[in-house]
Amino acid sequence: MINRYSRPALRELWSDGRRFEVWLSVELAACEAMEEERPTPDSIVPPGTAARVRAAASGKLDPARILEIEQRTRHDVIAFLTHVEELAGADARWLHLGMTSSDVLDSSLAVLLCAAADHVADGLSKLSAALRLRAKEHAATPLIGRSHGIHAEPTTLGLVFAGFLAETERNRRRLAAAREEIAVGKIAGAVGTYAHLSPAVEARALGRLGLRPETVATQIVARDRHAAFFDALAVIAASIERIALTIRHWQRTEVGEAEEPFGKGQKGSSAMPHKKNPILSENLTGLSRLVRSWAQAALEDVALWHERDISHSSVERVIAPDATATVDFMLARVTGLVEGLVVHEQRIARNLALTEGLVFSEGVMLALVKKGLPRQRAYEMVQRCALAADSGGTLRERLGADGEVSALLDGAALDECFDLQHHLRHAGAILERALAEAAR
Amino acid sequence: MINRYSRPALRELWSDGRRFEVWLSVELAACEAMEEERPTPDSIVPPGTAARVRAAASGKLDPARILEIEQRTRHDVIAFLTHVEELAGADARWLHLGMTSSDVLDSSLAVLLCAAADHVADGLSKLSAALRLRAKEHAATPLIGRSHGIHAEPTTLGLVFAGFLAETERNRRRLAAAREEIAVGKIAGAVGTYAHLSPAVEARALGRLGLRPETVATQIVARDRHAAFFDALAVIAASIERIALTIRHWQRTEVGEAEEPFGKGQKGSSAMPHKKNPILSENLTGLSRLVRSWAQAALEDVALWHERDISHSSVERVIAPDATATVDFMLARVTGLVEGLVVHEQRIARNLALTEGLVFSEGVMLALVKKGLPRQRAYEMVQRCALAADSGGTLRERLGADGEVSALLDGAALDECFDLQHHLRHAGAILERALAEAAR
Amino acid sequence: MINRYSRPALRELWSDGRRFEVWLSVELAACEAMEEERPTPDSIVPPGTAARVRAAASGKLDPARILEIEQRTRHDVIAFLTHVEELAGADARWLHLGMTSSDVLDSSLAVLLCAAADHVADGLSKLSAALRLRAKEHAATPLIGRSHGIHAEPTTLGLVFAGFLAETERNRRRLAAAREEIAVGKIAGAVGTYAHLSPAVEARALGRLGLRPETVATQIVARDRHAAFFDALAVIAASIERIALTIRHWQRTEVGEAEEPFGKGQKGSSAMPHKKNPILSENLTGLSRLVRSWAQAALEDVALWHERDISHSSVERVIAPDATATVDFMLARVTGLVEGLVVHEQRIARNLALTEGLVFSEGVMLALVKKGLPRQRAYEMVQRCALAADSGGTLRERLGADGEVSALLDGAALDECFDLQHHLRHAGAILERALAEAAR
Amino acid sequence: MINRYSRPALRELWSDGRRFEVWLSVELAACEAMEEERPTPDSIVPPGTAARVRAAASGKLDPARILEIEQRTRHDVIAFLTHVEELAGADARWLHLGMTSSDVLDSSLAVLLCAAADHVADGLSKLSAALRLRAKEHAATPLIGRSHGIHAEPTTLGLVFAGFLAETERNRRRLAAAREEIAVGKIAGAVGTYAHLSPAVEARALGRLGLRPETVATQIVARDRHAAFFDALAVIAASIERIALTIRHWQRTEVGEAEEPFGKGQKGSSAMPHKKNPILSENLTGLSRLVRSWAQAALEDVALWHERDISHSSVERVIAPDATATVDFMLARVTGLVEGLVVHEQRIARNLALTEGLVFSEGVMLALVKKGLPRQRAYEMVQRCALAADSGGTLRERLGADGEVSALLDGAALDECFDLQHHLRHAGAILERALAEAAR
Repeated sequence: MINRYSRPALRELWSDGRRFEVWLSVELAACEAMEEERPTPDSIVPPGTAARVRAAASGKLDPARILEIEQRTRHDVIAFLTHVEELAGADARWLHLGMTSSDVLDSSLAVLLCAAADHVADGLSKLSAALRLRAKEHAATPLIGRSHGIHAEPTTLGLVFAGFLAETERNRRRLAAAREEIAVGKIAGAVGTYAHLSPAVEARALGRLGLRPETVATQIVARDRHAAFFDALAVIAASIERIALTIRHWQRTEVGEAEEPFGKGQKGSSAMPHKKNPILSENLTGLSRLVRSWAQAALEDVALWHERDISHSSVERVIAPDATATVDFMLARVTGLVEGLVVHEQRIARNLALTEGLVFSEGVMLALVKKGLPRQRAYEMVQRCALAADSGGTLRERLGADGEVSALLDGAALDECFDLQHHLRHAGAILERALAEAAR
Repeated sequence: MINRYSRPALRELWSDGRRFEVWLSVELAACEAMEEERPTPDSIVPPGTAARVRAAASGKLDPARILEIEQRTRHDVIAFLTHVEELAGADARWLHLGMTSSDVLDSSLAVLLCAAADHVADGLSKLSAALRLRAKEHAATPLIGRSHGIHAEPTTLGLVFAGFLAETERNRRRLAAAREEIAVGKIAGAVGTYAHLSPAVEARALGRLGLRPETVATQIVARDRHAAFFDALAVIAASIERIALTIRHWQRTEVGEAEEPFGKGQKGSSAMPHKKNPILSENLTGLSRLVRSWAQAALEDVALWHERDISHSSVERVIAPDATATVDFMLARVTGLVEGLVVHEQRIARNLALTEGLVFSEGVMLALVKKGLPRQRAYEMVQRCALAADSGGTLRERLGADGEVSALLDGAALDECFDLQHHLRHAGAILERALAEAAR
Repeated sequence: MINRYSRPALRELWSDGRRFEVWLSVELAACEAMEEERPTPDSIVPPGTAARVRAAASGKLDPARILEIEQRTRHDVIAFLTHVEELAGADARWLHLGMTSSDVLDSSLAVLLCAAADHVADGLSKLSAALRLRAKEHAATPLIGRSHGIHAEPTTLGLVFAGFLAETERNRRRLAAAREEIAVGKIAGAVGTYAHLSPAVEARALGRLGLRPETVATQIVARDRHAAFFDALAVIAASIERIALTIRHWQRTEVGEAEEPFGKGQKGSSAMPHKKNPILSENLTGLSRLVRSWAQAALEDVALWHERDISHSSVERVIAPDATATVDFMLARVTGLVEGLVVHEQRIARNLALTEGLVFSEGVMLALVKKGLPRQRAYEMVQRCALAADSGGTLRERLGADGEVSALLDGAALDECFDLQHHLRHAGAILERALAEAAR
Repeated sequence: MINRYSRPALRELWSDGRRFEVWLSVELAACEAMEEERPTPDSIVPPGTAARVRAAASGKLDPARILEIEQRTRHDVIAFLTHVEELAGADARWLHLGMTSSDVLDSSLAVLLCAAADHVADGLSKLSAALRLRAKEHAATPLIGRSHGIHAEPTTLGLVFAGFLAETERNRRRLAAAREEIAVGKIAGAVGTYAHLSPAVEARALGRLGLRPETVATQIVARDRHAAFFDALAVIAASIERIALTIRHWQRTEVGEAEEPFGKGQKGSSAMPHKKNPILSENLTGLSRLVRSWAQAALEDVALWHERDISHSSVERVIAPDATATVDFMLARVTGLVEGLVVHEQRIARNLALTEGLVFSEGVMLALVKKGLPRQRAYEMVQRCALAADSGGTLRERLGADGEVSALLDGAALDECFDLQHHLRHAGAILERALAEAAR
């Protein structure tokens, strides 16, 4: 994770200090659950142990010291426990009882990923709110719709935002499902059999942490859950990339329909003082590639050996912080872009008129069909006039001058085909649909 | 899609013939919805049109003829419509009215992907059934649990299958969600505005096809839906890879705990007559890599230009058939492997005894902790005996001979630590949990 | 591999029939090498064997029959050998002597990949030739250079093509290196030790096939070679995507500087008769995603188990044909696009003038620096005039009206900054450099 | 880049401080080249400027101050130049003359990537040296070769190391080629046309930095170069993964042929004192996934818009440090593993004998063929005996007791087939070949 592409909350979330505190909270949750176990034979932890360890160690862990001990033990959880013993003394012996490192690590990872997911969810909510506002603001701003980068038929700027809104809402639902998938821990021992533990202790301990037990754990929580989680992040990133790509297109010199907010004192180029570049959107495009690639690595982590091998660990040490922090950052950035986007309505209107009506060609063809022509015949007649318009004259003029066409459609009938408001009569309904769905 | 890694049903599903028939069904569904539109101004389709076209063309489309026409038009949907006009004559003019190619293509893709998803869902059900059987069959078969490929602590063979079962059930839920995501079509025109259509026509037409309308379509249905779908397939493939990897490990010469069914007349190697290789599992490992890579391409399809560009199309022409057919094939293959897996219980028992009790080391450490030793002290005492056992003697013997240990734990107390049944006392409960969850 | 995205030669190359013929050629090459081995103890193959088998079987293999036999043996090479025995009788016993299936499969794969690489190399040559022509044709066509999609400073259309040319030449060199990497076979037996063979036999046999021996084979040729090969294809695909992306941008309605050739009878849209879409370029964009993803799968094939596992095989059965055929197809398509690209010089000129001189801002800043201003001061003065020009007036006018600027630069000095030919004075030299490098 | 998976030299290489110093060196190299330009019209830089700026700024840059300025300008190179102006005063105006940010950034990236490549090359050399030693040490240690995880035929441990050596040597050559590809900078201005510069200045400036000029630059150096570079790293990582995977298999409890060095004081598991896990090798397996995924992102950076967009930048800010540092770390780690690997020759010998001769089955089949049997007939006879040996008796015994076999091969002839030294007679030659190739 690099500072440039992350925000403070996520950097703190994935700091050594926070991680060790979460480890401690898992150990203490398990310890408390064991204290409550009396009077079963497994319950040997003296009451009050967790409270005493918490008082001695919570908030006092020294990450540097733990890493120093790890140099010797080459095992991070053992180093951590050794340090807790330094702080809490004899009581610490009751920690980690019957547990394996992964009980701590995987339950902690779940706590941290859930917290990260909550940040991402918050970012999605804010993006939705921004999109909703812009969609309503431009509900009635006609905009040329483009397929293949070529003018197609008119749409509205509001609908573009509404499309992004609908996609963001889908991402909220996907993220919620993915968070549910990884809100799962385990306190089940070396190979998940509770050899020195019990399902009851686990359930209580995880409950305190906001987690559910893994259905069938091995040494670890199954990694298909994490793959699904990182895939959800990759889709979110791709959706942000779609918004960013649209802004980049809008800001092109020749299009000029909208542009990124440009700060006072900002410089677009070290060489060319006239430049105002969509660099934030381009940045999001690149970051999406990274999130996408990390998801690929997560998919390779699913098939581990037997009850686990540790190859997933190095992957997750990198991608869990990097992917969540990057998506959090991307959401904040794209939300700012949506909110601050400078819309040039005059350019939008000018571009809409650029083809001088070519974009209404479909309506003419349909009118000819209604007059009884076979579809392909009608198509060819209109295409002929459209291609001719390339060399001068508007489509409307070419059609009027075309003997075959004007024999079927008089001037009024032709004019009707070029009516923008008729084209957009359903735009409001679509927008309402998107807003209603987003409100759910 | 290659024959070797696909099954007939999926090959048929993605054939040219089937695709064109589905296109026709979309056109007819739209046509029927338009017929019912009377007496609104948009309703110009004469009653009975769809029925007449269906009678003339359905089941009679000639894929070769369509491809021939496409050579000229360089546009597949126009070629298709031209051919329908050849078959159905003047009535065909009422097809595709106000529609754009993507109305047909995307709605058809949804129909086909849903059908493919149903095959995959069926495959997951069968895999679950097979895993459930093997899990129950081996509920009480002790097996050494391995982490890092090293003997850890005992588990049961039933729990291994139960773990796969739980993962398969998660995949069923993920697939169901992903199917829901792509059961979405559009009949909304060139840029999704219903310029020459209406939301009501679309809703009725898609309803006939088992689809819902896209919330805010552009020229196409949004591609985040498809990315999520192919990601779900990639996770399924990775989960199958996990099962396959386990079988490959079990079949290793030195492990020998289970092996793939070996057919009569089968030959393992062209050079070595003694070979029986886990080639089906290895094959699944490779196929998983492919499915994973295809999901990557799908993620790149999300950010298209404006109201659409067609770059996603070539990707989907390849990966929609290939990914669904491959996963369908993988599920059938892995289910057969699970059902037919030859389990060697003697080797399992022999391997469990291989370390002569080393795998019970944790219990001894915990017993020492219960006697009042600090955890790290206890750990070091047991590790000392365990490493000594490398050079001869069992762990139990080394512990008995260790002055410090035997001062705290007498022979009976030590024996208790080596009790396999105590270790596995919760295995039944875990299995029940997995079965109960799967039954939901 | 699908017909739509492949050409006949590559389809033939990867057909069952061709593959079995290549297998036979490998077996015969080995057989001949063994015949020549006399009188060493390993030489037991009667002279003339290979010639007789060739006469009986070469060109007469029946793929369907081999697949039928494989149904029973579940081993493709054994099925192949059985079929050869059906054709050639007793002589066939001398084939495959001491060899393992992978001796045949990997040497054959090398032969086929080399042949495929030669097609790709040919495609690269043709693309280079087309780019060279267009680069020279437009050596002196000024074009606005764009960074971030925003007008930057002028360049020439010839230089754009020259840039593609230089990249294509790099790809030729990469492909040549990658071909060298996979022109490697093995005839070394079950685990690469020549247990029943000899390095001399291998060297002679592979020499007949145009291959070198693997330095240290396991059962197979090492897969890092193939990963490097597919990576080279992925880079080629990405370079083609870069050309395609440029064409797509040029063809945008608002830019209109160039467009794909549009065939007679072609239809751009089923709904909109006026459309001419850059669909070939978009298609190439999508295909590049596929080639990229396949390379990812190839990288996962490198780390196989011990002397080999067969997980790479299913991957290669798909990606070897698909990746080579797709890149071959892409090269042909992009070459056609480059050759046929319709350039609209008027639009290019109009776009160049669009910002009315803003794109010369850097020269003004530098002129001010030469007059003694600190760089940042000069930058801010020009940026001020440039941003003001947004609201009317050209940059030249704004500069002339700016007191501070005009105090330092008089009219003539300012005019000099806006001299296009001065800007482009080195363009010819760059082009020469690219052509010279390409000629090597 | 995280500390856990990187080494100090690479962390320093990618630090802010180092980066800004390299930027300064590029600016100074360009400045010096311009000073030498007199008396052409472009030469306006006063002699001695670069020397004075170097004295004032080199080694004195304050990264924190630059980042602070960037907060305002939102442009990193402008912030850097502003800071240099703070340090060097009026002379700084002559820096960056006619240059664009990417002239500095891309030339600097090339300098840094080359330095990183040199570290990686050094790591590859050390790995080669370690492999060479172990290959020679175990030139004559017989080891069962395994295909599909199943015992195949004998090989030697030395050949396994030799195979890794040959692959490492290929990676050295690939890396050298990839380094050559990215040893390319540009000092060519905003769109690569030398509008305010000259090819001669560029050539001299880059020469001082150890770089060559880009053939045809846009605003930047073409990104196919970088994609090829990161692909080369991905292949290196995959090759390391292959070594790591082999060690993991060797260390399995049931195999036990070799194990990672286990440090004094090291703890294998927080729960199980007896564990010694191949965690370093597993770690390398995971890291390889990361490097692979980063290469994927680099491939998406090739197709940028027109003369450049900046989407590649965020990708490279992450993967240039992460990928090079990770591969550098992996090489050091795997070299240590190879050097320190504890080989258990007794277990190797025991495993070799595990199948009691089954692994010699091919020789028997060939002997039968030499006696005149058709190959498939001989195969079936030996397979029959081999499968029977599963239920007791060695293959040698079963063959001796088989009427058909013993009719053709007497006891002495059969014994000859089971001669290990005959099997391995070419092992020395293969090893020599690998060593000779590595020496080149």
